Formats: sequence, structure tokens, C-alpha cells
Amino acid sequence: MKVKAGIIGATGYTGVVLVKLLLNHPKVKITHLASWQHAGKKYYEIYHAFYDEIKLTLQKLSVDKLACNCDIIFLATPNDFAKSFVPKLLKKNQNLKIIDLSSDFRLKQSINIKGKKFNIAYGLPEINRKEIKYAKVIANPGCYPTSIILALAPLLKKNLIDLNSIIIDSKSGVSGAGRGPKQNLHFVEVNESFTPYQLAGNHRHIPEIENHLTKLLTSEIKSNLKIVFSPHLLPINRGIISTIYASLKRKKSQNEINKLYRTFYKNEYFVKILPPNILPETKNVRNTNFCHITPLIDKRTGKLIIVSAIDNMVKGASGQAIQNMNIILSLEERLGLDTTGNIP
Amino acid sequence: MKVKAGIIGATGYTGVVLVKLLLNHPKVKITHLASWQHAGKKYYEIYHAFYDEIKLTLQKLSVDKLACNCDIIFLATPNDFAKSFVPKLLKKNQNLKIIDLSSDFRLKQSINIKGKKFNIAYGLPEINRKEIKYAKVIANPGCYPTSIILALAPLLKKNLIDLNSIIIDSKSGVSGAGRGPKQNLHFVEVNESFTPYQLAGNHRHIPEIENHLTKLLTSEIKSNLKIVFSPHLLPINRGIISTIYASLKRKKSQNEINKLYRTFYKNEYFVKILPPNILPETKNVRNTNFCHITPLIDKRTGKLIIVSAIDNMVKGASGQAIQNMNIILSLEERLGLDTTGNIP
Amino acid sequence: MKVKAGIIGATGYTGVVLVKLLLNHPKVKITHLASWQHAGKKYYEIYHAFYDEIKLTLQKLSVDKLACNCDIIFLATPNDFAKSFVPKLLKKNQNLKIIDLSSDFRLKQSINIKGKKFNIAYGLPEINRKEIKYAKVIANPGCYPTSIILALAPLLKKNLIDLNSIIIDSKSGVSGAGRGPKQNLHFVEVNESFTPYQLAGNHRHIPEIENHLTKLLTSEIKSNLKIVFSPHLLPINRGIISTIYASLKRKKSQNEINKLYRTFYKNEYFVKILPPNILPETKNVRNTNFCHITPLIDKRTGKLIIVSAIDNMVKGASGQAIQNMNIILSLEERLGLDTTGNIP
Amino acid sequence: MKVKAGIIGATGYTGVVLVKLLLNHPKVKITHLASWQHAGKKYYEIYHAFYDEIKLTLQKLSVDKLACNCDIIFLATPNDFAKSFVPKLLKKNQNLKIIDLSSDFRLKQSINIKGKKFNIAYGLPEINRKEIKYAKVIANPGCYPTSIILALAPLLKKNLIDLNSIIIDSKSGVSGAGRGPKQNLHFVEVNESFTPYQLAGNHRHIPEIENHLTKLLTSEIKSNLKIVFSPHLLPINRGIISTIYASLKRKKSQNEINKLYRTFYKNEYFVKILPPNILPETKNVRNTNFCHITPLIDKRTGKLIIVSAIDNMVKGASGQAIQNMNIILSLEERLGLDTTGNIP
Repeated sequence: MKVKAGIIGATGYTGVVLVKLLLNHPKVKITHLASWQHAGKKYYEIYHAFYDEIKLTLQKLSVDKLACNCDIIFLATPNDFAKSFVPKLLKKNQNLKIIDLSSDFRLKQSINIKGKKFNIAYGLPEINRKEIKYAKVIANPGCYPTSIILALAPLLKKNLIDLNSIIIDSKSGVSGAGRGPKQNLHFVEVNESFTPYQLAGNHRHIPEIENHLTKLLTSEIKSNLKIVFSPHLLPINRGIISTIYASLKRKKSQNEINKLYRTFYKNEYFVKILPPNILPETKNVRNTNFCHITPLIDKRTGKLIIVSAIDNMVKGASGQAIQNMNIILSLEERLGLDTTGNIP
Repeated sequence: MKVKAGIIGATGYTGVVLVKLLLNHPKVKITHLASWQHAGKKYYEIYHAFYDEIKLTLQKLSVDKLACNCDIIFLATPNDFAKSFVPKLLKKNQNLKIIDLSSDFRLKQSINIKGKKFNIAYGLPEINRKEIKYAKVIANPGCYPTSIILALAPLLKKNLIDLNSIIIDSKSGVSGAGRGPKQNLHFVEVNESFTPYQLAGNHRHIPEIENHLTKLLTSEIKSNLKIVFSPHLLPINRGIISTIYASLKRKKSQNEINKLYRTFYKNEYFVKILPPNILPETKNVRNTNFCHITPLIDKRTGKLIIVSAIDNMVKGASGQAIQNMNIILSLEERLGLDTTGNIP
Repeated sequence: MKVKAGIIGATGYTGVVLVKLLLNHPKVKITHLASWQHAGKKYYEIYHAFYDEIKLTLQKLSVDKLACNCDIIFLATPNDFAKSFVPKLLKKNQNLKIIDLSSDFRLKQSINIKGKKFNIAYGLPEINRKEIKYAKVIANPGCYPTSIILALAPLLKKNLIDLNSIIIDSKSGVSGAGRGPKQNLHFVEVNESFTPYQLAGNHRHIPEIENHLTKLLTSEIKSNLKIVFSPHLLPINRGIISTIYASLKRKKSQNEINKLYRTFYKNEYFVKILPPNILPETKNVRNTNFCHITPLIDKRTGKLIIVSAIDNMVKGASGQAIQNMNIILSLEERLGLDTTGNIP
Repeated sequence: MKVKAGIIGATGYTGVVLVKLLLNHPKVKITHLASWQHAGKKYYEIYHAFYDEIKLTLQKLSVDKLACNCDIIFLATPNDFAKSFVPKLLKKNQNLKIIDLSSDFRLKQSINIKGKKFNIAYGLPEINRKEIKYAKVIANPGCYPTSIILALAPLLKKNLIDLNSIIIDSKSGVSGAGRGPKQNLHFVEVNESFTPYQLAGNHRHIPEIENHLTKLLTSEIKSNLKIVFSPHLLPINRGIISTIYASLKRKKSQNEINKLYRTFYKNEYFVKILPPNILPETKNVRNTNFCHITPLIDKRTGKLIIVSAIDNMVKGASGQAIQNMNIILSLEERLGLDTTGNIP
């Protein structure tokens, strides 16, 4: 019998990617789609691509219906919603599994319901698989943090870099900013342009990045890790490239770095370490759950450059949510995600 | 045991989409990838998206190896190659199934090898499913013809339109022009522009379109069907919209037209007739094998407007080739193709 | 002394193109910029491209200030605003010249203020130059109508085509839909897609097109001209291509058609008739006030195909407004508009 | 009488932008256009945008004709051509002024012809105006170097940053890679993707950047300045953003940095220092000769972030060449360049 899944915020971009991935998933069935704005409409009225593919009608938000009709619930909701809604769901049904795609639980360890403590796991399986397996609530990571933490984890685990040297220059496609119409997301404003935004420490993802990078460090280092993080908006729908710079504590060769990364991720299907002559490109991970990483030594300066690429909607959001779901449901981790990119 | 498939011209755009679709196909295994230009290289060296996904090395062209290592062969080759190469393959191995994605066999009925006649079918399953099932060679339709013939078939089968009134204004993404670098396909030339090309009867697809539209007519009409066909180049990777105009012989209501189309395609999974308030968009069929069609009556003028949308690389090429393969192998027709689009 | 110009609705897309063109105009000075939404802000706060280029502050709407500080006023406002506001301006100052870029006056001949009749001209200079010169109010044409009327005028003036045969398949860049954020103009929705909209007689430009096409006919024809008009949205910022089909009343050669068009437009700087081997492309008119037209005979069917290209923001809106301004101010018609496109 | 200008390599992208800018220049007349590939054709046959705008025929390369018909010659040629061709031109006519847009002379100070020494100036007017004025040959800077040197000059002149801390993350539109068709510049490969290239010290612009940055340092510093330079390819036609990171030697406030930059560039029309709340965007400098710069202090880390934007075809190539021409011809420096961007 299939697992019953519900999605709150099903008409946003992370919502629609969840719908698509779950429709193709062999062990799960979508039973409930909730939406504030579009309750009462058929799902295909919002996304014509699903005409004749999904018959479900969008529902008003109802704790009771969600808690009763679902085994697992995805919250593809704006920030600050999940933090009060998830306790309501768990009060109603303590057997529910919850995957929250917003930032509400990413800096928390647990949640108390009626005196009972439920574990929250930060849902980056390549780093936290064990915690995820036994958590009640998964805080699905942000897109930028996913691209950055996977790129830096092998270095930080081995304490190889100067913690004050990390500079992260990230570039993201527009879907990461959500589906709501805004002036700065109007086609004409974004198309044929490129712009940095929220530089110099102003981006809301910084605490998430620094917190989870710090956790990778061995306990004896009293870290005060502070990153420079510069996001830029790319005129494409999907994809993130993070180009990351750091200073090595001790000189390393290109071969040593390759080996470090390959060893670290040797059992990870979704992380691919590319050889130095192949650099990540957003198109090569588009519509997939892969993260491509190329670590490089800049021989002239000795600095380390790590480039990572993900699809911000898949490994950066809904695909990773499915990966987390597979883990907590004890399913094969790749289920419903095992596909190469759409080239060209 | 899986069916063994070979692809000639595996590094072109139709080639790489075949590779992707076959990698995800449960009943087929790619055993041979041939390429003139890149023989000797690993496939992933050409398409980095396949790094660690496919280990095959590209082979030089060899009739012997292809005929021995494969049960079915796809020719994703430039026009004028298949016409001499397919006979060589069939001489070597008369059990081979051949699917040619070029235009070489689209106007032919059969091929003679050592005095034996082999059937060729025009591979548009919604129109020719029976012929396809028993053919040795499938001439996979062109992308423009697919979008046009599916849109006009219900009308022509019922003899409802004036045969000299058909005007077809088509718009195609750039992948339809192939992967070879050309001045007019340079990013800077195509991007942020839009242009008609080969207007006024100069496009090479016209004989294919007229020939197969004529076949839809009942025999008593001595047709001299001539279309106006105007292709335009869109600054997108994938997708075709054909906006087609025709004059009705007798007045019809919008409801009658809807019913005609829905009845005609009622058993066809890959053709969706949309209601008049939903128009086809390329993004809604992107990366899918669907054809979306909206037929409309323009009340002010009485003219008929039919809009159809396909992904030129999937239903317009490699996806339809897989659909044809499934038919000739007596597999479920949707196998490996059963996916909704990638929105956003 | 420079002519003083005011712009109402200065922060929309037609507004900003007016600002740019007037800043570069040698005989005109911008004295007043009005905006509902952004009154009180510096203009460069809305458009950073104008940082240090224009110091003006956006003003609240004030009939008095506009009527006193300006010799000429451009209304780059939403439809239904000008129709009540222009009379107020003219009551205050009957010497004002008014150029309205909305659709409010495009179907009108005159306006009465205090019992006095003021002429309104439809501002398509290549067709109506004389009327424009002596008008008080210019109704600046729509972008689609400009591309269509210029393409059909030589044929209609000579009564060469069947009036019920006209089919217009137009494709427009996104800036034509305005600057306000809307779901269907969100970057992610438009990018990498292509869609028809408002087909089958539903577009608001149809009465304007039919009205002004009908005026081109000689009086003895009691016309009931009805067009089929199919607009489509292109994923580019600027540019319109109209591909127009019509049936000739009498057979014509390609040479005769070329000659007809070249003769008709022989004194028109802004309309270029291209030879049959060069087709219009939006990039070739981008940022210019040119209209490129290629008329073609489709020998196979005898049908006429006319392709026209304009930049919807320039010849289709603000550039044509400047051209009209030059005419009513008795300036050289090309002033401030004499520039080739920005290639690449 | 107008100055006579010739362009070698007139059909490339920097060539066509030179043609456009010179056509609009009030003091210069194009007298000679040379092209290997297209000699014998009319210029408008290559660029249809110039139909009826320029009648010149493309000429075969001829030292004699160029040296006799021109006062000033622009070389918009591939690297390694100018280095042997410029001496031939100067031997023929020592009065010629030469502006080379390739990299051939960017690391040289002078050239010897028949025992006579001619000065070469690196053509970045905001830094080297005096040298440019009296040079015979101008080495027009590369696009990346222009965006980088202008962004770092105020800091290096004042010796404010740690010379080993400079990290430059640059993103460029595709026109910078030239007009020749190549696999990696095919529309389908670039569109909807983003990719780093030639990372870790492999880009050919590095010696130019390091050489001219070092020249900005006061002589007492024995510099061994080494930069990290990471170029990335943007799916847009025009525009460069360089995001530059450096460590300050001494703490500075945001106000001090603003003041430093504003003072340094206070007389420079083409360099605009934006306030910290306005970041450079490629669209805001598109089609202009402006460089937008925002310097920022990242308070959390103390690091300096400088963002600069130029149009790679204008300030990064042909516009700067015109600016240099104006200087050596003692014309007003803005002549033919005084235009705001094309928004939207």
C-alpha cells in the first residue's frame, strides 16, 4: 500500500516540483494538496502541464484533514508559517512525518509537543543521514546552503582551511525567489541582465550556512567561522553555481584534494566529484538531484577554489525533500530521483 | 533479458535525448554508440551531464558490429546517410529493427534487400500504429510535420476543410537545427531575437507534410492539397508551436469542433485536447512526449484556428522514436516516456 | 530655447523610453515627470541606469503644474486615463500639444473643449503625416497595429487583396505588456517558453487595426474588412514580428510586389522594404524607430506573405511618439531618432 | 573636414560596434572596411540592421589602401595579427593613428619602425589619459581588465589592500567570446546555463590585469601582486560584472571608502560610483560607455567587496576605443558616446 503524502503550498514552485516528483514515485501517492490562494480549483488550472495528469482539487488549509489523510506532509510554505503549524499537526497525529522546506526549523534541534520531545534533523543526507532517519521533522536545507555545505564539508571535517578565509560567490536562477509576482522578478527586469543582491552580509541564508559549516568542525576547534557570501541573480529558471575560495592551512596538491573529495563522497550517489578539467555547469544538473563539485588548486596563489552546481529546485529543495522522505520511510534513497539531466 | 539498442550519431541532440530516454527505459539496454567525429572518446566527455552515468566509449561506424551487437538501431544521423546505410545493415542482419530519425525514408513505402521487400512505416503512432507494428524500418517523422499532422488529422479525415486554405505558422526552438556550430545558431545571433526563415515554400519539410496530410484524405477526393508553411526560429532550446489556419467547408460550433478532436484522440495518451480557454505553451510539454492541441473557432470570421505544441526533441524526434520502438517490440507504448513536464 | 516636455506615467516602460529619447533630443527639455506610484522619489531611484543622468524628482499628478510647465505632454498612462485627463489639460492651456500613448483616442476624430473642437490625429506618420501636423492631440498607435498597418497599407491603398483573407500571426516581446508585476509576466513563466494568447478575435487591438485598415481603402468599396489576429508572447524584451497572409485579387509577380512597396514608401526614412532574400528579424530593429518589411509571393499557392518587424517600445510606442512630436513641432522628423540598431 | 577612419576586422562583434558608433559620430567618417572572410560583399549583407544605412563594400586587406585612405585605423582583429601588421602600416604612413583592440600591444611600451620609436599607450583613459594623448598606437584594454582595473585603482593607488588577498569573480556575456561559431557558443549550449571556465590561473587576461594593477602601485612597494581570477560565462549577449574581494590593510568605514572612490573618479564622466544601496547591474550599463562601481565594506568580516559593471562591447572594447580616439584627436572625450542605456 502506498504512503499517503500531502503538500501544503502546492502551487508554489517547490510545491509543483514536489507534485511532479511524487507523481512519478512508485511508493507514494499524493492524497492532499493545500493552497491558500487557489483552494477550490483543480490543480491543472494552475499548472496546465498537469492537464489530465492529476485530478486533485486544491484544499483549504485544515489541520484535521491533513493529519488524517496523510502519512507524510511536505510544507512548501513561506517562512514563518511552519513554526506554528507543525506543532498543530503533531498534536493531532504524532505518527506524522513532516518535511518542512522553509527555513523555520533549520537552526533548531527539537520541538516539544505536550511535554514530548521530537527530534528535528537538518536534511542534508550526505552529512546527516543518521539523524534524518530517526527524526520526526526534517528541516530541508536552503538551496544556497546545500550548494555550499556539500562543497566545503570535506575540507572542514579535516580542518584543512583557514576559517576566516572563506569567500562564497554564488549565482542562482530565478525560481529560487519563488512564484509570487514582484517587480524585480518581472521578465523584462531579469532577462538579459545579471545582478548581485544582498551583498556584504545581508542575506538571510548566512546564519544557516555558518551554523551548519561550524557543526562540521571537530569539537576541539573553538570556531568563530565567518563567511563572506555574495549571491547574484542569473537570468535562467533553474540552477545554482557556488564558486568558493579558501586558504589552505598547509599546502596540498591537486591530486591530494581530488582524493580527499572522492574519498569523502565515495558512497554518495548524488554527489559527483568531477576531474579538474571538467567544471560544473548548471545545465548538467538541471532537473536532477545531483550535486557536481570540482575542487581546484590555483597554483599561482596557492588558494583553493571549489565550484559546485545543483538544480536549486531539486537538490536545492524538492528533490532533496524526496531524498529525505525516502530515508525516513526506509525506502531506497534514489527512488523517484534516479534520472540524468535533460540535455539539450 | 533486455533488448540491445545501438545509436548511430549518438552525440547529436536527437542522439543524446535517445541516450537519456533509453538509460531510463526498463526493457532496453544501450550496447553500442557510434559517432564519426568523436569515436574513441567516452560518452561523458562529450556530455558532462553523463559523468559516472554511462561508461560506454563511442565507436567508429561498423556495419558488422552494429548488426551483431544490437536488436534495434536508431539512426540519429544527418539526412542522406540512412538511405545507403540501412540496406547494408539489413543485408547483414535481417532481424534488425531500424528507426531512422532522418528524413531519408519518410516518403517511401518499402525497401528491397536481395529481392526481399521490407515494409517502411511513417512513425506517427496516433495515425499509423498498425503499419508501425509490422514494419522493419520506421521513418520517424520530422518535428514540424508531427506538430502539424496531429493538429489537422481530425479535420482531414472528416473532409471538413477547404484544402487550399491551410496556412501554417510554426515557431521552433533552436535544438531542432542540430548541434553543429553555425553562424546563425551562435548564441548572440539567436538570443533576444526572433526571425522567420525559409518562407514562401522553401522549407524542406513541405513535401513530407503535404504527402502525409494527403494520405489522411478519403480516396474519393482527388486532392491537390497545397499548404503555406512559415517556420520561425524561437530563442529557446526546445519546443514547437504551430498556429494553423483553415477555412471550414461548413459552419461548425466550438462544441462540435471540441467533440470532433476529443473523439478522434480519445484513446491516445500522448495527445491532449485542451479546452478553448487553455492554449498550448511550449513549457507545458517540455521534456515530455505529449502533444497539446487547442482547436478554436474564430467567431468573427468563421475561420478555424488550431494550435499545437510539442517538445521538438521528444514527441518531435527521440521520444516518438522510443514510442515507435515500444510498438514494434510489443511493449507498453508509454514505457520510459510516462512523465509530466519539468515546471518551472 | 528648448521645447518643454512633460511625461505622465514616466516610470512605466513607454515612459522610460520617452525619457531616454528626450534626454538625447537636441531641441527638447524634460521639465516635468509625473507618477502616481513613485511621486517624491528621484527618477534614478526607479531606474538606476539614470543615476547622475537626470536629477528630476517625480511629481504627483497636477493639471496646473503640467499645463504651466510644459509645451508638450506625453501620456504614457494606462488605458482609460487620458480620456478624462486630456480635456482637463486643454481647458487649462489650449496651446498645449498632447501625445497620448494609450488607446483612448485611437478611434476618435476630435475632442470638444468649451464648445471648441480640437483635431485628433492617429499618429502613424507614414500614413497620416498631414493630419498629424495640424492636430492638437495625437493618438499614438498601438504596437501591433503599427506593425500591421504599415505592412498592409500598400496593398489596401491599391485594393489588391481579398478583404476577407487577411490572417495576421503576430509575436511580441514582453515589454509590450507593461512594467507592472503579474503572474504571467514573471521571469520563470515567460523564459524558455512561447505561447499564443487572446486568439480567435479576443485581443483589444482588433478594432484599432480594422478601423485604420478600413480607412486605407478607397471610398467606393463598402468594406466589411475582418481580420484574423493571433498574438503570441515571445521570451524577449523588445520586438514584434507580424507574419501576415492574404490572397491577391489578381496574380502578381514578386517583382511587381517589391516595386509596389518600394514606391509606396520611397520617401519614408523609417520604413525599409527589404529584398526577398532578407527577412525581418527583431534584433535588426531593436532600439531603433525602423520598420523592416519583406513582402513575398508564395509561388506554390499564390498567396501573399508580408513580414514586418519593429521595436515595440520605439516605432511601436515612444519612438513614434517622438516622431509625431517632431512633426507637430515642425522639427526635422528624424531628430533624436536617427540611430541604427545595437548589434550584437 | 571629417577624420577618415578605417576598420580591419569590421564584421566581428567589436567591428560592428565600431561601425555603429562611428556612423553616429559627428567628426569622423568611415572610409574603409576590411575583412578577410567577407571581402567583396556589402556591409549590410553581413549585418542586415545596416541595410540602407551604410553602402560601403568590404575590402581585402591592403596596407597601401588602408595607409592612404585613413587618418586613423582600428584593428578589431584576432590576437597575433596586429603585432606584425601595425609596423607595416606605420612604415607606409607615419602619420597614422592606430587603435588596436586585440591584446598584442597591451604589455608593450613602444614600437620601433626604421629606427624610430613610437609610443604605445594602454588605452584606459581614466588611468592613462596623458599617455594616450601623445601615443601613436593605443593598446585598447581587454573587457575583463577594464572592469577590474577601474574597480581596484583607487585602492592600489593609496596602497590600502593586502596585495595577496585579491580575488576576482567575473561574469561575462557571450559577445566577449567573438562572433565565430564554436560548439561552446552554440545557442543551445549557452542558453539556460551558467558555467565557470579557465579557472585557477588559466585565463589569458591574467598577465594584462596583473601588469596594469602593479603599475598603479607606488614605486617603493616591491610588489609581487598575484590575483585569483575566475571568469564565468553568462547567458546574455552583453555585459560584465566583476565581484572583487580584498582585505584592507587598515580598517576603513563605508563612508571613507565611498569618499575615496568618489574623489578618485570625481572628474570622470564614464565612471559612476553608486551609493551602497544601489548595486551595479549589467542592464544599467548596456549599450553605454559607463562603468558602474559600488564599493562595500562587509562589516561582519571586515573584507572589502567591490562590484563593477560595464558593457563588454562598449566600455570593454569599441566604446573605449572611440573614447581613446577622441583623446588622440583632441576631440571632446564624450563625443559619440554620450548616451544612457536602453531600458527596458
